Amino acid sequence: MPEFFNVLPPDEARALLFSHLTSTMPPETIATEAALGRVTANALHAPHALPAFRRSTMDGYAVRAVDTYGASASLPAFLTVTGEVKMGEAADLTLNVSEAALVHTGGMIPETADAVVQIEWTQTMADQAQFPYEIEVLKSVADGQNVLQVGEDVRQEAEILPAGHLLRPQDLGGLLALGITEIDVTRQPRVAVIATGDEVIPPSETAGPGQIRDINSYTVAGQIRQAGGIPVLQGIIPDKLESLKTAARTALDQNDMLVMSAGSSVSVRDMTVQVIDSLGRPGVLFHGVATRPGKPTIAGVVGQKMVLGLPGNPVSAMIQFEMFGTPALWRLQGLHSPSRRGMVTARISQNIASESGREDYVPVKIKETAEGLEAAPVFGKSNLIYTLVNADGMIKVPINKNGLEAGEMVEVQLF
Amino acid sequence: MPEFFNVLPPDEARALLFSHLTSTMPPETIATEAALGRVTANALHAPHALPAFRRSTMDGYAVRAVDTYGASASLPAFLTVTGEVKMGEAADLTLNVSEAALVHTGGMIPETADAVVQIEWTQTMADQAQFPYEIEVLKSVADGQNVLQVGEDVRQEAEILPAGHLLRPQDLGGLLALGITEIDVTRQPRVAVIATGDEVIPPSETAGPGQIRDINSYTVAGQIRQAGGIPVLQGIIPDKLESLKTAARTALDQNDMLVMSAGSSVSVRDMTVQVIDSLGRPGVLFHGVATRPGKPTIAGVVGQKMVLGLPGNPVSAMIQFEMFGTPALWRLQGLHSPSRRGMVTARISQNIASESGREDYVPVKIKETAEGLEAAPVFGKSNLIYTLVNADGMIKVPINKNGLEAGEMVEVQLF
Repeated sequence: MPEFFNVLPPDEARALLFSHLTSTMPPETIATEAALGRVTANALHAPHALPAFRRSTMDGYAVRAVDTYGASASLPAFLTVTGEVKMGEAADLTLNVSEAALVHTGGMIPETADAVVQIEWTQTMADQAQFPYEIEVLKSVADGQNVLQVGEDVRQEAEILPAGHLLRPQDLGGLLALGITEIDVTRQPRVAVIATGDEVIPPSETAGPGQIRDINSYTVAGQIRQAGGIPVLQGIIPDKLESLKTAARTALDQNDMLVMSAGSSVSVRDMTVQVIDSLGRPGVLFHGVATRPGKPTIAGVVGQKMVLGLPGNPVSAMIQFEMFGTPALWRLQGLHSPSRRGMVTARISQNIASESGREDYVPVKIKETAEGLEAAPVFGKSNLIYTLVNADGMIKVPINKNGLEAGEMVEVQLF
Repeated sequence: MPEFFNVLPPDEARALLFSHLTSTMPPETIATEAALGRVTANALHAPHALPAFRRSTMDGYAVRAVDTYGASASLPAFLTVTGEVKMGEAADLTLNVSEAALVHTGGMIPETADAVVQIEWTQTMADQAQFPYEIEVLKSVADGQNVLQVGEDVRQEAEILPAGHLLRPQDLGGLLALGITEIDVTRQPRVAVIATGDEVIPPSETAGPGQIRDINSYTVAGQIRQAGGIPVLQGIIPDKLESLKTAARTALDQNDMLVMSAGSSVSVRDMTVQVIDSLGRPGVLFHGVATRPGKPTIAGVVGQKMVLGLPGNPVSAMIQFEMFGTPALWRLQGLHSPSRRGMVTARISQNIASESGREDYVPVKIKETAEGLEAAPVFGKSNLIYTLVNADGMIKVPINKNGLEAGEMVEVQLF
């Protein structure tokens, strides 16, 4: 198997990969209350208008606006308050000419009223618990003033959320306000993660000479969670073709995606290619991406499931998962326009060299300065996990640029 | 109780509140693997160096660099390969003059070697499984070339994470690489949420005339989760002083913070003040904040626990929780410099009016344009939850400004 027989620019690699991933996770019905961070499986419509009745936005008196026209402090309008609309109760009073009803913020407006005079614009000498009593209105109100109209928040049958929407706290509130206590969301993708490498041991073991602890299973598991998936760790599988094939086949059968942390030596990478091709069609789609770090990334599709072979280096593995795994998980959940959360604009503190024809990812530390945010590169080999621990985010040097100059403004993808 | 006896600018309100909240949640020990999004309770140090042994960054031959000096394609250096360092095994070969050892990416370097020649810079006619064999080295390597040194990632005893650090995927990887499989994190604050209001009913019930479904318990619960806390919903308590006092006292005893969605009428707000003051010292700290929306926010402290009385309007409630509840939860967890995730810079699409002396929060929708991101205000009364459902984030009009002008660049806090 030739090394890097098919090295692609990252945009092309993603487009090729995603052209084979067209299906979305099936929907499941869950309690709206528990749907934070999930993705709507279909568009949702308002079963009724919100508010469902006209509500006061002030403490005051529901009136017929016309009865207040011309009112002022020197020439008040005199109204008779015939009763009170209690919170949570229907407003069944009828207002005749020059009558008013005591209302509270959020309370219902009687059908014959069309405005609310706030209490601060009125005065009375009466005991306000004894009806009827008289008030002076010191300012006129317009028709509709201080009143929330029926459907002003949302009209009946209006689309309230589209399909593929990531649910936030206010969305849950909006749904529950309409009595939508259960909704269909896409099922969370289960992502199997296989670590390989004869030198790799579980973190709980003591590393002897030549041995290192598994890092990638855990960093990738965290990224899977952040992208809305459920990581299913498969442990460390020996670097033998048959054991890898068996483990990969089982993992893929039982899950919706497979990530293999594939080691970095040529022989191990070739084995990953063979394993993916053994699982089914179309198999490996590319073997190598024009990026640094992360060139030796391998990706394939089996049926409708993605198999990603990540480089063994922890920095490469994380950056490549962000590049292919995260957007694949979004797509699987039906999320086509992810949130912009996590991008900031900053000024680069120093020149960064790069080769044209390759997309470079550089971890940066963000600092607040008088001139705004500054991004300082955290240099380090892609074998060094602490370059990422010490960084706040990363910047991309585009494929057609020979590096970035100190002072340039760049977008930083925050971790 | 006079209305707004103590309306404070928001910065002053926060400073006053936080001056009374000086304690941090107690630590608990959890599996590192499960610590994503949690906050370190103390600084962590490396129990050993990483890497713990010198490792090759290439497939190739471990050599004494001096044996390659002057080597070129036309005048190669001839070296004898005496054996292989297998992955995961100790490199117990000793290199004499002009000897080399076959190594793989990530493998250990023999003690007597000081550099690695990558395989592409060598050639041989020999069968590479039969030792010894001879290779030609076509390029010289420098001392240390293609070698990760001991401690190059992290030195023994170095501080790897400070106290108060929000744990990200790479942090988990960095800890596990060092065999730190359990860590102390601050306990997640439990936040009781009480809804009040005679007009408020649970979302599962059918709303009659004058009734509305509870929204704030659920939006605030989502915000509590996003800030690292655990929401503990207490349901809807009748608007009666004694029942509210009893419910509040129990909720505060059993939890670390209390949020009351307090309704918007004056009488209900006054009742919230009385309830908080009845719970203990210092009691209510401010009653009213110079913001829109959200002026009638009430905050107090009882012992070391915050009690927040939010306005009944759902938009006000969310914005005020973001202003006081979220940073209080960060502080409780010991997180003093929260991530910048969620800020973007955008150009305002139109003028926004505001009053000086008041901080205004305006929900906005973000649009990508050829000139960068544009933020368009989503106007709507603070009673309308769908103004937030339809928005991507919000902008702040500073307290000393009379509005913002179309074209100004602003920071948008994304939802």
